[in-house]
Amino acid sequence: MIATVIGLGSMGWGAAASLIRAGIAVHGVDVRPEALARLQAQGGTGHATPAPAAALSDVVLVFVVNASQAETVLFGPQGAIGTARPGTVFLLCVTMPPTAAIDLGTRLAAAEMLALDAPVSGGAAKALAGAMTLMASGPPEAFARAAPVIAAISAKVFRLGDHPGPGSQVKMINQLLAGVHIAAMGEAMALAAGIGLDLATVHEVITASAGNSWMFENRGAHVVAGDYAIRSAVDIFVKDLGIVAAEAADAGMKTPLTETALGLFQEAAAAGMGRQDDASVALILARKGGVRLPGDQ
Amino acid sequence: MIATVIGLGSMGWGAAASLIRAGIAVHGVDVRPEALARLQAQGGTGHATPAPAAALSDVVLVFVVNASQAETVLFGPQGAIGTARPGTVFLLCVTMPPTAAIDLGTRLAAAEMLALDAPVSGGAAKALAGAMTLMASGPPEAFARAAPVIAAISAKVFRLGDHPGPGSQVKMINQLLAGVHIAAMGEAMALAAGIGLDLATVHEVITASAGNSWMFENRGAHVVAGDYAIRSAVDIFVKDLGIVAAEAADAGMKTPLTETALGLFQEAAAAGMGRQDDASVALILARKGGVRLPGDQ
Repeated sequence: MIATVIGLGSMGWGAAASLIRAGIAVHGVDVRPEALARLQAQGGTGHATPAPAAALSDVVLVFVVNASQAETVLFGPQGAIGTARPGTVFLLCVTMPPTAAIDLGTRLAAAEMLALDAPVSGGAAKALAGAMTLMASGPPEAFARAAPVIAAISAKVFRLGDHPGPGSQVKMINQLLAGVHIAAMGEAMALAAGIGLDLATVHEVITASAGNSWMFENRGAHVVAGDYAIRSAVDIFVKDLGIVAAEAADAGMKTPLTETALGLFQEAAAAGMGRQDDASVALILARKGGVRLPGDQ
Repeated sequence: MIATVIGLGSMGWGAAASLIRAGIAVHGVDVRPEALARLQAQGGTGHATPAPAAALSDVVLVFVVNASQAETVLFGPQGAIGTARPGTVFLLCVTMPPTAAIDLGTRLAAAEMLALDAPVSGGAAKALAGAMTLMASGPPEAFARAAPVIAAISAKVFRLGDHPGPGSQVKMINQLLAGVHIAAMGEAMALAAGIGLDLATVHEVITASAGNSWMFENRGAHVVAGDYAIRSAVDIFVKDLGIVAAEAADAGMKTPLTETALGLFQEAAAAGMGRQDDASVALILARKGGVRLPGDQ
């Protein structure tokens, strides 16, 4: 079994390291020479473009940042499709608009490839541990052929259908909730600080109450600690909630909370926090009320 | 130990039943004769007004609907203060604006009473089981004297300070998050239906993912089942998010997500859903996109 990982950022790097640990030969593709050097130090083989790697591989995992980059690494110059053998399985692990995932999946099928719409969640630590969650849809043959790769990188796989689309759609619903919940955490913590409550106490009570969310528990701890070092960036939710708003509009659906939260993440990015932790949205809401949270510079 | 429970709605009735089970003599006050008959069938004593009950009691629990009713049953004609002995402990278990809780607590202290600002959470089933959560603040002597009562009605007590205010403030932060999360659940489920996803699958995946919240898990199940029979009403969040918005404005803080969610609950109430389950906010968002969710009439 030979696999190619295109895009060696935090999630792609975690996948590559997990595959090597599982005894799978890994080719990595990245534009950054230091990313390729790190891969080679672990026993993988680095390439500056997808074409030579895809020629050798049974499975190609795509971990680039967005749909446009995915299109380029697959169908652009020196892209994977130019050299991949028919029947190669492509795992599209990028969070992208469902319409884009369906489009890429259709074009891969037309090129005689097997495509899985397979966005991931779990963050960098789980990626490195081979314990990501996959929200995946595509033909059963693709799941079967890629089984050793999927087993190496994930702790949980939701199989959501036999064609591309549902994987990215369910991931989009998850991002809607995650983004709104982070912004709600920021609003709650800013108000708590504004009326003089102790934030650690608020975090303790709420995490044991009906107001809790996965994001309140996780990101709220960053606000209590005043620690905005990046785990997942504000810019990610500017992108992901932008996808939700655009896809909802295309479907004729209303998403007022998504739009409100998106506006707050955009304000945070405009204030220079785009590459800070997404919990920074709390700082924006606190500042609007003239309050400085712990860790605000 | 003799206790009075003023207001025998779902939470007050649960408290009264729990106190009787614990061997505490219970006087109940309600304007509805059928509520008093039910109490007397369980071994309690019913009264139409607070004054005669408070005269006999060590602890008075207030479970009316809002701050205005609390003011009336305490300080109005035939109110509890007219007859209560100095040192009687008053548990204010109403979700009300923190400023109102502080005002009532101050007036009770001036009348030589001991006041606990002690809003509850957990719902009717936990109330009946003697397993509510208390978010409570007030003088240590009040906690000590009311200890048998508190033990009988609650599974968890957060002691949040030695004066009225923090109890209602933390409860308010909880309601902010709970209300926004219910509305976010509605937005996510409506969008999922609008793009053709199976709602039971979405609920299963999200509850195992970072987009989860206590409310998504709980109220999302109502949407999957198409079951809008009342557990907690839309009208409750019209009231509670209204409190959040008003208190935040007084403190100079911005709460854009609260205001957006409040608008959705107000729309649901205006559409005749005020006394339906609060998950009905999903129906409103679905209808805006021309989608009918399961159970929508």
